[in-house]
Amino acid sequence: MFAPDDRILVAVSGGKDSLALWDVLLGLGFNASGLHLHLGIGEYSNLSLEKTRHFASSRGAELIEVNLAKEYGMGVTELSSKTGRVPCSACGQSKRYLFNKVALDRGFSVLATGHNLDDEAATLLGNVLSWQTQALARQSPVLPRTRPTLVKKVKPLYTLTERETALYCLLKRIDYVEDECPNALGAKSLLFKEVLNRLEENMPGVKQSFVKLFLKRIQPLLKSEQDVDVRDCAVCGQPTTREICAFCSLWQKALSGGVAYNASSGAQIEDRRID
Amino acid sequence: MFAPDDRILVAVSGGKDSLALWDVLLGLGFNASGLHLHLGIGEYSNLSLEKTRHFASSRGAELIEVNLAKEYGMGVTELSSKTGRVPCSACGQSKRYLFNKVALDRGFSVLATGHNLDDEAATLLGNVLSWQTQALARQSPVLPRTRPTLVKKVKPLYTLTERETALYCLLKRIDYVEDECPNALGAKSLLFKEVLNRLEENMPGVKQSFVKLFLKRIQPLLKSEQDVDVRDCAVCGQPTTREICAFCSLWQKALSGGVAYNASSGAQIEDRRID
Repeated sequence: MFAPDDRILVAVSGGKDSLALWDVLLGLGFNASGLHLHLGIGEYSNLSLEKTRHFASSRGAELIEVNLAKEYGMGVTELSSKTGRVPCSACGQSKRYLFNKVALDRGFSVLATGHNLDDEAATLLGNVLSWQTQALARQSPVLPRTRPTLVKKVKPLYTLTERETALYCLLKRIDYVEDECPNALGAKSLLFKEVLNRLEENMPGVKQSFVKLFLKRIQPLLKSEQDVDVRDCAVCGQPTTREICAFCSLWQKALSGGVAYNASSGAQIEDRRID
Repeated sequence: MFAPDDRILVAVSGGKDSLALWDVLLGLGFNASGLHLHLGIGEYSNLSLEKTRHFASSRGAELIEVNLAKEYGMGVTELSSKTGRVPCSACGQSKRYLFNKVALDRGFSVLATGHNLDDEAATLLGNVLSWQTQALARQSPVLPRTRPTLVKKVKPLYTLTERETALYCLLKRIDYVEDECPNALGAKSLLFKEVLNRLEENMPGVKQSFVKLFLKRIQPLLKSEQDVDVRDCAVCGQPTTREICAFCSLWQKALSGGVAYNASSGAQIEDRRID
């Protein structure tokens, strides 16, 4: 996933997983800075920023902050209502874009996220129920740097359950945001987690084997699905599978009522998804 | 699946699915005989035979009966306890063997079973959770006759839910066994069905797309998994992937305390599974 001389950017939400990850990396002596996005989701976002800042200062670690409303004109809640996209979709797209852009602009070699086993199993179940072959081909704990403008992504905690990362925070006295994001209520990911927990009760270890054997036995068969046609976004010039990348499209739509949208000259678009 | 001149053997348990299937095939004018296995599972087996006989006589259809205890020395309950195999495993193996043997011995060109969408989705979920690639490669509504000794198998109702087959029986006033097999209590298949029903509540149509898109998008990628080394069973001479086929092994073990096991000269072993 990374070597001692890598500069690691950790995407930190203020929840248990990302704070545990950052803590482990710092404890092991890695060069790991934090990136926190203030997404503009009411009090939840304010609390998340507060917990993240508290952790960063307690460890004397570098924290980079990006405020969506200040830098782009609106937060996720407004972005969602103006574009008619479900909040989790607009949010996920903006996060993927900004994670990559900040890492690239600041010269980090790796972006690390705190996805745990429950996250990975839930995503896998969702992709399997509708057999999304392109999403399945990309669901990996390590996405290498296949293009200069796409930073390497890693998920070091993907074999640990969320109980384990919560316990780690408890033992290390790490104060984290315990609430789920209010937008996630009713989200499919929570349904998938509920169902997987029901299976795990009767089949201990099933989440682990579901994810690991998928990576071992099935993903290699999906290699051809990774070969998608990539082109330059007509607006921002960054790699995409469409004429205009998903991020530019979303913000163009959000801002079309007033301010004209222009991709900033340094913008780096990540568009691994085909929507 | 079959043509008007095919001779179809319908595996009939006495439950809603297999009786509905037989009724539909007879109603459409197909040449369809029934095969009922008396498996020796207490009163459940007696009631199943009774309902099956009642249906057959009401339609004037040919019914072939095989009584496991009378023909092989013991029923599933005893077979299971003598071999230490879970009942569903010993039962499934014996059924697969006898379905093929009877169809072959009596010159049927197709064997049809009443598996419905819930059955198929549950089996698929089980195979996906542990990524059983060989089982996934074989899970199909049509298994063609790849060898002279393996009769073609079809599942005509695989897109209908169990609610739909139950409703069909209700409308056609078909009297069927409503109880689950007592051995199935606590079986994984029921857990998988429960979980899939929970998903279906929130995602109507998910079972249908789970099964159909698997067949369309994933199974073709598993072609190489179907190429297993097949040889002749050292005991009965029928095709198997092992030295001694699973059926012979099972009955040798069951009878090793007393009677010596000899495969009858006409025995036809189906052993698509690698145990």
